[in-house]
Amino acid sequence: MSSSTTPILKDELDIVIPTIRNLDFLEQWRPFFQQYHLIIIQDGDPSKVIKVPEGFDYELYNRNDINRILGTKASCISFKDSACRCFGFAVSKKKYIFTIDDDCFVAKDPTGKEIDALQQHIKNLQTPSTPFFFNTLYDPYREGADFVRGYPFSLREGVQTAVSHGLWLNIPDYDAPTQLVKPLERNTRYVDAVLTIPKGTLFPMCAMNLAFNRELIGPALYFGLMGDGQPIGRYDDMWAGWCMKVVSDHLGLGVKTGLPYIWHNKASNPFVNLKKEYKGLYWQEELIPFFQSVSLSKESTTVQKCYIELSKKVKAKLGLVDDYFNKLADAMVTWIEVWDELNPSEEKSVTLPNCLAK
Amino acid sequence: MSSSTTPILKDELDIVIPTIRNLDFLEQWRPFFQQYHLIIIQDGDPSKVIKVPEGFDYELYNRNDINRILGTKASCISFKDSACRCFGFAVSKKKYIFTIDDDCFVAKDPTGKEIDALQQHIKNLQTPSTPFFFNTLYDPYREGADFVRGYPFSLREGVQTAVSHGLWLNIPDYDAPTQLVKPLERNTRYVDAVLTIPKGTLFPMCAMNLAFNRELIGPALYFGLMGDGQPIGRYDDMWAGWCMKVVSDHLGLGVKTGLPYIWHNKASNPFVNLKKEYKGLYWQEELIPFFQSVSLSKESTTVQKCYIELSKKVKAKLGLVDDYFNKLADAMVTWIEVWDELNPSEEKSVTLPNCLAK
Repeated sequence: MSSSTTPILKDELDIVIPTIRNLDFLEQWRPFFQQYHLIIIQDGDPSKVIKVPEGFDYELYNRNDINRILGTKASCISFKDSACRCFGFAVSKKKYIFTIDDDCFVAKDPTGKEIDALQQHIKNLQTPSTPFFFNTLYDPYREGADFVRGYPFSLREGVQTAVSHGLWLNIPDYDAPTQLVKPLERNTRYVDAVLTIPKGTLFPMCAMNLAFNRELIGPALYFGLMGDGQPIGRYDDMWAGWCMKVVSDHLGLGVKTGLPYIWHNKASNPFVNLKKEYKGLYWQEELIPFFQSVSLSKESTTVQKCYIELSKKVKAKLGLVDDYFNKLADAMVTWIEVWDELNPSEEKSVTLPNCLAK
Repeated sequence: MSSSTTPILKDELDIVIPTIRNLDFLEQWRPFFQQYHLIIIQDGDPSKVIKVPEGFDYELYNRNDINRILGTKASCISFKDSACRCFGFAVSKKKYIFTIDDDCFVAKDPTGKEIDALQQHIKNLQTPSTPFFFNTLYDPYREGADFVRGYPFSLREGVQTAVSHGLWLNIPDYDAPTQLVKPLERNTRYVDAVLTIPKGTLFPMCAMNLAFNRELIGPALYFGLMGDGQPIGRYDDMWAGWCMKVVSDHLGLGVKTGLPYIWHNKASNPFVNLKKEYKGLYWQEELIPFFQSVSLSKESTTVQKCYIELSKKVKAKLGLVDDYFNKLADAMVTWIEVWDELNPSEEKSVTLPNCLAK
């Protein structure tokens, strides 16, 4: 089933980068990124200067900027953690966001060609998703593919795609215990597929190489309270992914994973990671059943309303797991206030899906 | 996460083939199949003789044999349709079944190496599945892969795998309308992945290249009433797949799709297919919501009990769509009687899953 995509222009997409610790990063991506606008959110000491090479169009926010712009509401934006990147999602005015970490470089496909990750993400976001039924030949909208025998015709139109989750060659995105057990494992396998994560199924969303339609799902991409002063780290993207998936499922939006690959260069220190993660490793055993069973009401017809409703359920259920989740639930509400202040009159109601869905 | 597999011996696996219309088929598979036992179920005129090349160990059943063995209960086995293959599943005494169509040949991987489809299926069946949470690096039990950050540790043990659904290079498994619209489309893309189809998600199961653990799920692999005297064809494997997935989800068993590929040689005639399919094409719009919403009771702790309960729900709900489904529901019950007669004292109760499931 063919489905055309259109080129994305500078006024439709921003690239959000949590911080830039080395100049090679932007130099390597120059041919692919230079035509777009960058939003850099400096995650640490604001007195340090981030050097951006010549020729890039960018805006840069450090902690002082965030405090100045948001006032007391800056409390919902993490400090000294890449979770701060979500501030960039809120200040952007574009339709699409691509966010990438500065230890991610240009990967090559099996033919040796450099992969334009951004263009593949745009393709993923501009073609529909199929969350209600699994297609065994993967993305049915791709050239040379289609829906297979037995796929209901009423579902072949698909739904709008909210999120495109890209993968990583070289260093896989493992947790600290797995890093410790398998320090030498590298991902060398290029799986030539994009697929929709079915409705009702959760996945671990990694923000190293992630794109989304900000108009459709932006307010759900909040990266929580991590880093400085918080009891946990490295769960910012996971938290965002679980919340986003619940909201997307409720609103009838699609989430894809697979292509494009980037080259993940640097494994972070497993001992540092273990310290950041250790509460998360057992909390997630409570979080997953919560997100698997939570359901949103018919009144929640916008991303903001969904997210506020979710924050109340987080407080009611996960507040019992640890007081941290009470603070996080409050921060979720503050985040929506921040979003609405920075994006006035943007909230759009949708008609909830009523097709062959679960 | 490594998970070892053991070689499968002849006394653990049967290969079930619905019919053999050309000798090339077995000649090409000889190096891979000759060490196993074949069960051939002749789907048409019993007076025709199927020639099996020298050196193969096989048993062959035609319609007269099926009638003789099953008596009046032979009514549940389709005639003049490859759906008859399920008779082979019932007469087998082995742990694993691999079933393949005679227009499927040995495919090559991207390095040009011939793919031993059977061994990949065995690997899929011998390693666990992960139906409760999606792993973005695909099969976590494969060499060089693992569970990614954010994957709950309590779910990493996985569950037993019931079914391994393999794919097809060259002629894709399209329905008649898609065949007509895209007569020249060929599947040339080798996706190097195996993945678990999440709990609660349905998929179109194709029996061209399919393996399963007969002890775990056998009685659910009934291929329905198709072909001679029936109003429908080409939905045998679909029906089996939807029933099997509902039962597997209920019993906490896993279903995988992806590798191995076979080379699908011959596109069937789209006009003939359209005649077989046309009722199915609109019935499936009612079937999918039925299978998406049906749930089985806590008392159904064996595949047989699940299947009988499902047959009652088919009669109650789908009997209203067409009287055909009343007959099919009765045939489902007969099928279980056949299974139990041919496999006495084999029914095993399981403890229903009570983990982080939906």
